[in-house]
Amino acid sequence: MLDFWYEFGSTYSYLSAMRIGDLTREAGVSVRWRPFLLGPILKRLGWNTSPFKVQQEKGRYMVRDMERICAERGLAFTMPETFPQNGLHAARIAIVASDEGWAETFTKAVYLAEYAKGREIADKDVLADCLKAAGRDVDAYFARMSEPETKERLKVQTDEAMALDIFGAPTFITVDGEMFWGDDRLERAIAWAQR
Amino acid sequence: MLDFWYEFGSTYSYLSAMRIGDLTREAGVSVRWRPFLLGPILKRLGWNTSPFKVQQEKGRYMVRDMERICAERGLAFTMPETFPQNGLHAARIAIVASDEGWAETFTKAVYLAEYAKGREIADKDVLADCLKAAGRDVDAYFARMSEPETKERLKVQTDEAMALDIFGAPTFITVDGEMFWGDDRLERAIAWAQR
Repeated sequence: MLDFWYEFGSTYSYLSAMRIGDLTREAGVSVRWRPFLLGPILKRLGWNTSPFKVQQEKGRYMVRDMERICAERGLAFTMPETFPQNGLHAARIAIVASDEGWAETFTKAVYLAEYAKGREIADKDVLADCLKAAGRDVDAYFARMSEPETKERLKVQTDEAMALDIFGAPTFITVDGEMFWGDDRLERAIAWAQR
Repeated sequence: MLDFWYEFGSTYSYLSAMRIGDLTREAGVSVRWRPFLLGPILKRLGWNTSPFKVQQEKGRYMVRDMERICAERGLAFTMPETFPQNGLHAARIAIVASDEGWAETFTKAVYLAEYAKGREIADKDVLADCLKAAGRDVDAYFARMSEPETKERLKVQTDEAMALDIFGAPTFITVDGEMFWGDDRLERAIAWAQR
């Protein structure tokens, strides 16, 4: 079993979301999809935005690195005008989706909207399209998204990420507590989970 | 041709220094060994230490990540008590070594002292051992290290790194200006250089 911690504001989480399902199925490892918010974690460092904005040179490099890797993997990549985007609503729906077993389809739809098409995932029309892509009733899950229990679930999950010393996304954690950070560590994380 | 930009305070640069020579010789790509100082670059962000100290959770993770990768590659790893170490003198000698064509042996000796044995590379005895490992006369190169021209060479090289938007180490840059950051991008950098 492997915990996949991801944040919708994270470009490299897009890379992992698009392949972790297939890679883990091939490896016979199950995945828990665990959306969380990186914002409250980075705020402790005094950062109110993405590390790619704090270090602008790193941000420019990240875009080029994403372009190259997406080209290698046949994935579309469009850097959205707003970065990082507000993924709060998407994360709330994703946590419900995770509880109900459809996180993979929904999460991939959100990342594709955001980083393949450059759409605004804070926009309700975009989220509605992602729910439809996952075969869900839009109104029903917009209602779930706004329930106090859902908000609390995401808050608790983000607190758990913080307690686990997660500092970035994507992060993979095995049952025995081994942490792997970054899409470039995904293969190692799966191999560790298989042992 | 590939420029290999490295900093002695960087653990991941150790990983690349130990393999870039062999990998590029196999690939028929030449390497320029380009030591520089990351300190002045990070200072622009208001950081007076390693990013692994700024983000302590990331620092703890980095140690574990290094342990795992070194184990995979059969490399020794000992996290030095002082981190990051002061690599100023080592970098000055390395830039002379680079001009004279013995940067690979010297650089590997310094990284092995620092991260395989956990020794203090600011210590002159340690640097003397590294010079001996590279078959050089210790007194002659200690003298070269302290010359104003050597100090200036390192300053100019660090300014060049800054002008290139280098924000971390190791960084690899191809002749056509493609940048790759991190030991996990070394294979891609070499493949790009081969095109």
